[in-house]
Amino acid sequence: LLLGYDERERGGPLGCAQVRLGLKYEVKDKRFTVLVMQLSNCSALTLLPNHKMYIRVAVLPCSESTRCLFRTCGSLPQDAVEVNEVFDIQMAHNVLRQKTLRVDVCHTSPSGREECLAGAQISLADVNTSGERCVKCYNLLSYSFMPQINSK
Amino acid sequence: LLLGYDERERGGPLGCAQVRLGLKYEVKDKRFTVLVMQLSNCSALTLLPNHKMYIRVAVLPCSESTRCLFRTCGSLPQDAVEVNEVFDIQMAHNVLRQKTLRVDVCHTSPSGREECLAGAQISLADVNTSGERCVKCYNLLSYSFMPQINSK
Repeated sequence: LLLGYDERERGGPLGCAQVRLGLKYEVKDKRFTVLVMQLSNCSALTLLPNHKMYIRVAVLPCSESTRCLFRTCGSLPQDAVEVNEVFDIQMAHNVLRQKTLRVDVCHTSPSGREECLAGAQISLADVNTSGERCVKCYNLLSYSFMPQINSK
Repeated sequence: LLLGYDERERGGPLGCAQVRLGLKYEVKDKRFTVLVMQLSNCSALTLLPNHKMYIRVAVLPCSESTRCLFRTCGSLPQDAVEVNEVFDIQMAHNVLRQKTLRVDVCHTSPSGREECLAGAQISLADVNTSGERCVKCYNLLSYSFMPQINSK
């Protein structure tokens, strides 16, 4: 069996990059709000100098009827970035509970292709419906650790 | 820019597959325990008949000194599977907090290659240190929704 991971320790002394998110669901308005607050410890990522980095937010699987993909404004690579951008997704709670939120740090490669470097993945199975924003930091896992993709 | 996702709704009426996990960290023994309890709604995955499915658990990035990769016993495809297997990872809390737990449903392809179909990814930045098991269900995101991987 192929392992699909590089088993060596990577980025150990640097720790991992993190993203701070505020998540909120308002039952009355059927609105899920993702506040992308801050990126930190980006030095742990392999950023290209002079290539703007940005955060891509996706609520997956996408629904045809609702916008599910968002990108923050780009910024030049730096260790910490204050983002403070808000994205609203209109969705019934029972639908949202079947979704997964992916938050990825990406850049545009020299060939113009979007490349994601690392990301967090958050199951929305137990999304909080209090209407209050829940703020947490999430470790970003480098794509170099993701197992082989099967292109099904 | 390439989108990297299939924007169509998939698996809508079927909902998503889920895994129920119990996570526990014991400070005294520096031991992180992952209890893989149950898979449910596996019909939402594209399982191959007569190919055993299993769950792969990985604490990433791997440390050289600690085992970080585990697999459950296989079972033939079915909608729900009681797993109830426990995996222990020895790790200091400040190290564990930099890690991400990946829990993937995999099978072995006809060519003998490990293929992962869907997974959950759990940031361990705020892993609970009460010593009590925290049990939750996590939605499994199909790999078909993962963006293009950049093989860095």
